Amino acid sequence: MQIGIFGTGVVGQTLASALIGKGHAVMIGTRDPAATLNRTTGTVAGPTTFSEWHGANPRVQLGTFADAARFGEVLVNATSGGGALPALQAAGAEALGDKVMLDISNPLDFSKGMPPTLSVCNTDSLGEQIQRAFPDLRVVKTLNTTTAAVMVNPGAVAGGDHTMFVCGNDAQARATVARLLGEWFGWRDVIDLGDITASRGAEMLLPVWLRLWGALGTPIFNFKIAR
Amino acid sequence: MQIGIFGTGVVGQTLASALIGKGHAVMIGTRDPAATLNRTTGTVAGPTTFSEWHGANPRVQLGTFADAARFGEVLVNATSGGGALPALQAAGAEALGDKVMLDISNPLDFSKGMPPTLSVCNTDSLGEQIQRAFPDLRVVKTLNTTTAAVMVNPGAVAGGDHTMFVCGNDAQARATVARLLGEWFGWRDVIDLGDITASRGAEMLLPVWLRLWGALGTPIFNFKIAR
Repeated sequence: MQIGIFGTGVVGQTLASALIGKGHAVMIGTRDPAATLNRTTGTVAGPTTFSEWHGANPRVQLGTFADAARFGEVLVNATSGGGALPALQAAGAEALGDKVMLDISNPLDFSKGMPPTLSVCNTDSLGEQIQRAFPDLRVVKTLNTTTAAVMVNPGAVAGGDHTMFVCGNDAQARATVARLLGEWFGWRDVIDLGDITASRGAEMLLPVWLRLWGALGTPIFNFKIAR
Repeated sequence: MQIGIFGTGVVGQTLASALIGKGHAVMIGTRDPAATLNRTTGTVAGPTTFSEWHGANPRVQLGTFADAARFGEVLVNATSGGGALPALQAAGAEALGDKVMLDISNPLDFSKGMPPTLSVCNTDSLGEQIQRAFPDLRVVKTLNTTTAAVMVNPGAVAGGDHTMFVCGNDAQARATVARLLGEWFGWRDVIDLGDITASRGAEMLLPVWLRLWGALGTPIFNFKIAR
């Protein structure tokens, strides 16, 4: 399958590596591919530079946001929250079309210090903002409630006995994403929360997630809905 | 043990019944005990009137908020979110003293229709508002993330294999509450999230909790932190 991923950070890298490992074709989209390859620093979360990572993952293609949007049969938004709408605007509505897009981003606002707050919540969400900006795109909020290493390997936590959520306005797209989460990464318990307004709840899990990271001393955990 | 509970609704009733059943002495506090006993209607969540419930639970004492505050060795705030601060103000700082108070309330705002939004979140929380209003009170946010029937009987869900959170500024009070949750109701996995600012995360679980209620068709579930 051809998959277009927006975002060159640790989340995009982790997903790209995992999907290549499953035999898929992956293109990562970025604003300026040459600039991305010329970056001389990594991030706090991933100290290697993008080009170092790319050297170890040469099958991952790199293109513009529009290239990745056109390339993907399915799209993944793995940008930071603040970068999500600019990235999609750079790709353009025509390239995005009515494709299914997994939206993994969280509207984290680090401008007021740590821990971050949410730049939108309660009566709106980033998932809804993206859906409103691109009405034809079939946005499915998912995977934003756990760390990248667990996204692609749920078995790393409690043998995979925990929960992922999907929500979005297109029921068929939600079902497609739930199936892909199982096929790609082995997610077994995917709960369909309904329309995209459930992004509010999914994104509002971040504050307790951040406190749990502190309390447990590791990000390798996840929410399970016991029932 | 003597326990003072603020709030005459289903949460307060459920906790009072359970604690009486464990041999504790319980007083429920309300603004006007006579008016509470004269109510002729129940609530959506509990169609029996308070006096009908009290007739079936005669060992539960009823008093003013101040009576319940003085009565309790430990206090429980089981009011609705909007009623929390007025109830505690009616009790008064002198009666509340420096007691440990389990704060179960959620700042749900039903004024804009269903589902409710939160009247405070992200950069503040009801738990923090209560702690600021009564600096000596040792507020421990807990139990607000599950339904009343599960609060008092975690074994009703997945054999009790799920998680409760505590947070508050007093480490000893958090440890006391974690122990009481085990002794009173059988909670086995209680995670200490740290200071009262973690109430933001605990209260911000409500939107996804409400969507899960809709998706699962029952409120009898709970969050487990798989790790």
